[in-house]
Amino acid sequence: MYRSILRTSARQLASSARPAAVRGYAAHSAPDPFNWQDPLNTQSLFTEEELAIQETAEAYCQERMLPRVLQAYRDENYDKKILEEMGELGLLGATIKGYGCAGVSSVASGLITKAVERVDSGYRSGMSVQSSLAMGGIDEFGTAEQKEKFLPLMAQGKLLGAFGLTEPNHGSDPGSMETVAKPHPTKKGYVSISGAKTWITNSPIADVLLVWAKYSETGKIKGFLVERKDCPPGTLETPAIKNKNGLRASLTGMIQLDECPVPLENMFPDVEGLRGPFTCLNGARYGIAWGMTGALEDCIARARTYALERKQFKGNPLAKYQLIQKKLADAVTDAAYGTVAAIQVGRLKDEGKATPEMISMIKRQNCDRALHNARVLQEIFGGNAVSDEYGIGRHVANLFVTQTYEGQSDIHSLILGRAITGIQAFA
Amino acid sequence: MYRSILRTSARQLASSARPAAVRGYAAHSAPDPFNWQDPLNTQSLFTEEELAIQETAEAYCQERMLPRVLQAYRDENYDKKILEEMGELGLLGATIKGYGCAGVSSVASGLITKAVERVDSGYRSGMSVQSSLAMGGIDEFGTAEQKEKFLPLMAQGKLLGAFGLTEPNHGSDPGSMETVAKPHPTKKGYVSISGAKTWITNSPIADVLLVWAKYSETGKIKGFLVERKDCPPGTLETPAIKNKNGLRASLTGMIQLDECPVPLENMFPDVEGLRGPFTCLNGARYGIAWGMTGALEDCIARARTYALERKQFKGNPLAKYQLIQKKLADAVTDAAYGTVAAIQVGRLKDEGKATPEMISMIKRQNCDRALHNARVLQEIFGGNAVSDEYGIGRHVANLFVTQTYEGQSDIHSLILGRAITGIQAFA
Amino acid sequence: MYRSILRTSARQLASSARPAAVRGYAAHSAPDPFNWQDPLNTQSLFTEEELAIQETAEAYCQERMLPRVLQAYRDENYDKKILEEMGELGLLGATIKGYGCAGVSSVASGLITKAVERVDSGYRSGMSVQSSLAMGGIDEFGTAEQKEKFLPLMAQGKLLGAFGLTEPNHGSDPGSMETVAKPHPTKKGYVSISGAKTWITNSPIADVLLVWAKYSETGKIKGFLVERKDCPPGTLETPAIKNKNGLRASLTGMIQLDECPVPLENMFPDVEGLRGPFTCLNGARYGIAWGMTGALEDCIARARTYALERKQFKGNPLAKYQLIQKKLADAVTDAAYGTVAAIQVGRLKDEGKATPEMISMIKRQNCDRALHNARVLQEIFGGNAVSDEYGIGRHVANLFVTQTYEGQSDIHSLILGRAITGIQAFA
Amino acid sequence: MYRSILRTSARQLASSARPAAVRGYAAHSAPDPFNWQDPLNTQSLFTEEELAIQETAEAYCQERMLPRVLQAYRDENYDKKILEEMGELGLLGATIKGYGCAGVSSVASGLITKAVERVDSGYRSGMSVQSSLAMGGIDEFGTAEQKEKFLPLMAQGKLLGAFGLTEPNHGSDPGSMETVAKPHPTKKGYVSISGAKTWITNSPIADVLLVWAKYSETGKIKGFLVERKDCPPGTLETPAIKNKNGLRASLTGMIQLDECPVPLENMFPDVEGLRGPFTCLNGARYGIAWGMTGALEDCIARARTYALERKQFKGNPLAKYQLIQKKLADAVTDAAYGTVAAIQVGRLKDEGKATPEMISMIKRQNCDRALHNARVLQEIFGGNAVSDEYGIGRHVANLFVTQTYEGQSDIHSLILGRAITGIQAFA
Repeated sequence: MYRSILRTSARQLASSARPAAVRGYAAHSAPDPFNWQDPLNTQSLFTEEELAIQETAEAYCQERMLPRVLQAYRDENYDKKILEEMGELGLLGATIKGYGCAGVSSVASGLITKAVERVDSGYRSGMSVQSSLAMGGIDEFGTAEQKEKFLPLMAQGKLLGAFGLTEPNHGSDPGSMETVAKPHPTKKGYVSISGAKTWITNSPIADVLLVWAKYSETGKIKGFLVERKDCPPGTLETPAIKNKNGLRASLTGMIQLDECPVPLENMFPDVEGLRGPFTCLNGARYGIAWGMTGALEDCIARARTYALERKQFKGNPLAKYQLIQKKLADAVTDAAYGTVAAIQVGRLKDEGKATPEMISMIKRQNCDRALHNARVLQEIFGGNAVSDEYGIGRHVANLFVTQTYEGQSDIHSLILGRAITGIQAFA
Repeated sequence: MYRSILRTSARQLASSARPAAVRGYAAHSAPDPFNWQDPLNTQSLFTEEELAIQETAEAYCQERMLPRVLQAYRDENYDKKILEEMGELGLLGATIKGYGCAGVSSVASGLITKAVERVDSGYRSGMSVQSSLAMGGIDEFGTAEQKEKFLPLMAQGKLLGAFGLTEPNHGSDPGSMETVAKPHPTKKGYVSISGAKTWITNSPIADVLLVWAKYSETGKIKGFLVERKDCPPGTLETPAIKNKNGLRASLTGMIQLDECPVPLENMFPDVEGLRGPFTCLNGARYGIAWGMTGALEDCIARARTYALERKQFKGNPLAKYQLIQKKLADAVTDAAYGTVAAIQVGRLKDEGKATPEMISMIKRQNCDRALHNARVLQEIFGGNAVSDEYGIGRHVANLFVTQTYEGQSDIHSLILGRAITGIQAFA
Repeated sequence: MYRSILRTSARQLASSARPAAVRGYAAHSAPDPFNWQDPLNTQSLFTEEELAIQETAEAYCQERMLPRVLQAYRDENYDKKILEEMGELGLLGATIKGYGCAGVSSVASGLITKAVERVDSGYRSGMSVQSSLAMGGIDEFGTAEQKEKFLPLMAQGKLLGAFGLTEPNHGSDPGSMETVAKPHPTKKGYVSISGAKTWITNSPIADVLLVWAKYSETGKIKGFLVERKDCPPGTLETPAIKNKNGLRASLTGMIQLDECPVPLENMFPDVEGLRGPFTCLNGARYGIAWGMTGALEDCIARARTYALERKQFKGNPLAKYQLIQKKLADAVTDAAYGTVAAIQVGRLKDEGKATPEMISMIKRQNCDRALHNARVLQEIFGGNAVSDEYGIGRHVANLFVTQTYEGQSDIHSLILGRAITGIQAFA
Repeated sequence: MYRSILRTSARQLASSARPAAVRGYAAHSAPDPFNWQDPLNTQSLFTEEELAIQETAEAYCQERMLPRVLQAYRDENYDKKILEEMGELGLLGATIKGYGCAGVSSVASGLITKAVERVDSGYRSGMSVQSSLAMGGIDEFGTAEQKEKFLPLMAQGKLLGAFGLTEPNHGSDPGSMETVAKPHPTKKGYVSISGAKTWITNSPIADVLLVWAKYSETGKIKGFLVERKDCPPGTLETPAIKNKNGLRASLTGMIQLDECPVPLENMFPDVEGLRGPFTCLNGARYGIAWGMTGALEDCIARARTYALERKQFKGNPLAKYQLIQKKLADAVTDAAYGTVAAIQVGRLKDEGKATPEMISMIKRQNCDRALHNARVLQEIFGGNAVSDEYGIGRHVANLFVTQTYEGQSDIHSLILGRAITGIQAFA
């Protein structure tokens, strides 16, 4: 049902002009009243197609995802059917053109991401891995055969991907990776991959794992599509990591490769070095910047409702107190600013003008501000915040993780610092 | 010289499309490298007209204003010729249509404001009073005769305005004002105004003072254009306030009215209550939000230069240190976010969609972040920061004042809080 | 074993002078090197007795408590044997004189609290309820009979207490409580209590519940000792609250009273109004201020170890990076300041000079700083922070709760604000 | 007059016990009410001698210094008679034993410093240079002859000192200094010193300048007492630096030495390397930590008075608003914490147990918190803050400078970081 809306709108509106295009500054009708849910009226910046996609995504997330998340988070459980449902709606790999993907704008994909993360950052992580890291990598660097083979099934959510870059000892410094791909000693046209990757979202359920390894023939990092079904027993293990402090509604695991044979035709042909994984991460980080605004907006909505309903001291709602209003005002402001910045980068992305540093900037800032404000808003709930039923504690725990992955905030500070000063200060 | 550029470009480009209009998201050329002076590439959002105005304004400010500011600040002196020079370039009341004004977009006027405040917030204050508060008020609420009489000379900077709202005992609460306008006991068709206004930018040099007073006939606040040249001796005094901690390159004074006769034809005809002054303030606050990004960008540029040139510990430039890079990254991010937010509100303003709360949001946030970051950047200068020649101490002192005037930050927090919750918490 | 040390030292050292007493400022030997675990050398401020108690408590907590906490937290499980063990060591109700209690100084009891919270805030909560809220209340307000009946068994941890003040709708405003005690309609010398209390630590396992209720005869709040064993079926329920975001190693529940008969001899005789519960809370809050420094110090130690062991970028330990060092320096400073402030209030407490506002100050500040720094230190762990095995995520989650209970930080701000200005701003 | 009190009390009370010595924790009288001016009742920690010194110093500062500061700050003028007055009261070099100095405790000297900085950080700077840097250096490292020659006159404020360490290009890194002392080519028993020092408090009026220079014979840094009266024309210049952003009530200048002949008997005999100047700085930094609490307390008192007197919105004083109360509560808390920490380090100092890192800690933290809170309190004054008559803007400007001199905060962070981790991260 949702899919048809999306696909139809995608077709019909492919050439629709951005509304801003027709703006003039002559009109002086009375403005709409201030809308705390969209304080800077960013809705006016979206195309009709984008608005339709937003509506589809929000409806699905609120109606189908939201009811599952509390229990999933408690149980550290991920319902992989979610990816299939998203696939049916055309929400996976949505910016990719062809291969059954929707081919929408970067802003539209941001709106999808935001809708998902409004529910839970874990669900967004599961989607990011599929859409940005795995499908995005194949679309950007894969051969025509690789694309044809994997993308259509992945777009439907029937083939699940994972992305193996981070290693146990090299979190922020992937260039030091130890995983290695050597010519297979016995199978011609194959490499043999050995090594370990950790904190890999969806690894326990992934069908195809994009693994980055040092290729012994060149000493350079290359990307390999490891298909679980083809791995001999004992060469690929993907144990789940349990007892997480956050993102408990997503699956996290390791990838352990022990002389795992992978055909050379599953290697990305041209890209080498860190450019490959960093390009994929860039796409994911762009999505995170959008997602943060969704998570923060949900915290705002929950805190606002609580503040209006909860009465203390002579029956006044908490919302009447200055200290409460300031918390809300700060959060609403940061959500609005984060949104306009993400839109701007999205537009530039589609014009080919977005740089990695821009994405570092919005990933870092939107994560930092979402986390900070979510924590402050959580204070509004007082002692009740400790109950998981209010949802905000879950967001706070999730947002801490999103601040640390795909570039911890300090690392992005130093990326920006390098871009500003021309001097690198990592080591 | 500048004027002709501006006026010409204004005419030629009046119908120019906003560049964003022609954006598609298909192109994939290599992006321009990251530009720390415009990290989110907002230049791509401006029309050719806006770019030309920006160039004119920046050139004037850097070449003509900047050389004067250090001494002016030391001496608490304001060179009123600046307004005349700005008038020649068409920079005053620039969004007003007709009356010799340039009639440019709200974004263009924001760019002018930013250029001025990049030099000094005091100079921007002097301009805001003329453009937004005095001319803006007359344009919005004046009679045809009032407009014809005042606006053309004011646009040329030959007639200087001031705006008298704040009273000594009612800073954040103008509704309690004590200044009163009563029918003049002897002069028919005149009112007699008595009361005192304080912290009035440009009052000591203003030719026409827009004074808000309670009109005894209705008990409502009304606006009056008090012309200095027509005031009998002793009925109007505008003593300067000296020994200020900041904004020392702007003139500040009081307005003391003692049974000052003002003709009723100098009263705004229709507007009454706080809507009048608040509309003017809204325009000024919008400008401040823009100006803040200029002041902050100047702090960034100064701090970056210092950090690159200053060597400590084994000859490393300060810019190599992580703690320094983080300060720069934070400031650059806030400047970029503040800019995209201001652009968005500017576009909405011209579409008639901007609300006062939006302007509260960007005034508050951009002031707060400019002040915060300027202070942090000042730390980079170490002991040398105490010298006024580095300029950053002046910005820090100025920015504190901008945070407190035209709505102290906490007041804007409560305005936003009220908009978010529906409950007012002022008292 | 520990008990004998404690009890012996308590006896032997009862009259020992505080070391500071013999200080002169003549000596100029070389100072001990800086100790990051006690940067302001507070050990020099403790008596020998206090040092012995500290040693006993730290040994027990590190050796006996610490190994249990990870699993307990995962399972939301509390081992009530802990209280019995603590009782054996003389750690419960330690400042109470007589009734088998140790009768130690307030600083000594702070050191016990700190040792426990170094392991887990949940364990400290379990102890605070027993020692400060339940035993403290009985010792302060109980009749001689009540003290004799309850305190000795409670000191041994064989009779468990709870403290029922907070109600579902009146978290920060206990004066509005709805729980009521009326003369029992049929049982002479009894009251009948009805109402509900929530967020009650230990309620599911408590044997005696100190319940505050409005006494219908006077309309004033009075304290009642409700003994579970004497409650007819259906009159007392204490269901556990599960799925908490923090303090998962402590038990939390409700107290539901439905016409529960309680003998009048179990009522505190003299105290009425909020003075009763507030006095108990004061004692607990004093302990929290101490406990916070323990939790924070544990976060520091864990983060420091991680930063020294974890290598990134050319094999440098994280500890070499400026951004990491600053996080550690900030946290160590706040822990040291919090400790000297808590010591000072402890000394004043024993001199009868501590005011409730002082305790608001150290409760608020030490909670706020512990929480803030714990969160910042957690960033050092990067992606690994999501694993509960590093322990810091548990502290972060706990510390948020401690900030909100027994006076949310904003409430304490307003208590302080009232004390500073003489004006109350709650409503 | 004051002097006799001080000198008498110093004699009479030399052996007085610290009040804390007689504390027991049995007493339970009603506590004194909360005192916002000393929230943690630190007065109870002082000896009678210390209380007497405090009274003397506060009386002098409030009665004699305070009336001069506003004009001095406006004019960048320093009344050198202040040092003579302080000398008469025995406030200079107060911890030094003998040579006409008072020989009081480190806490007593802290109380003097606090009293002075409550008025103005510039006045405190002028005193710190005389007492801690110049006299402290001579007392610690000088020969018997040097002490006899200089200290008595300096204690009387009749001979003024300065301390020349910082050079234009080596602010935070004095080890790279360029000033050099070579054997004088013609005058036997003399060195010839050449080089430049900058940001030297009191240099324009100093009679004796303690200059640190690299001694060409050893390549090590040595200290030289340069007596202005003995310098041939052209060999010593001490031009004032004007137009400062802060500390305008203190004199700042350069020291320019051009082959200046200095007798070897004016060299400190034993100390070499950075240990010499760092020891002096340590003493000064200890004083700054105390002084900060004085400046902050003055900001609190001024803001509180303003908040109680200023009415807005229905005639409510600002003090009634939650956002105002929180600012006051935060500041009061930080002032109280800073005070107890400074007392603790003072006591340890006199016991020979204070380490340089402790002093880095309290210098950094007390400066940072004083500056932060002063800025926040300044917001309470709204637009009026721009007037220098409220005094708080002067403190804010001063406190920024104190944060950057004698070890900028980031440098102290890294000193602490090194002490915590064992790894240095300066370069």
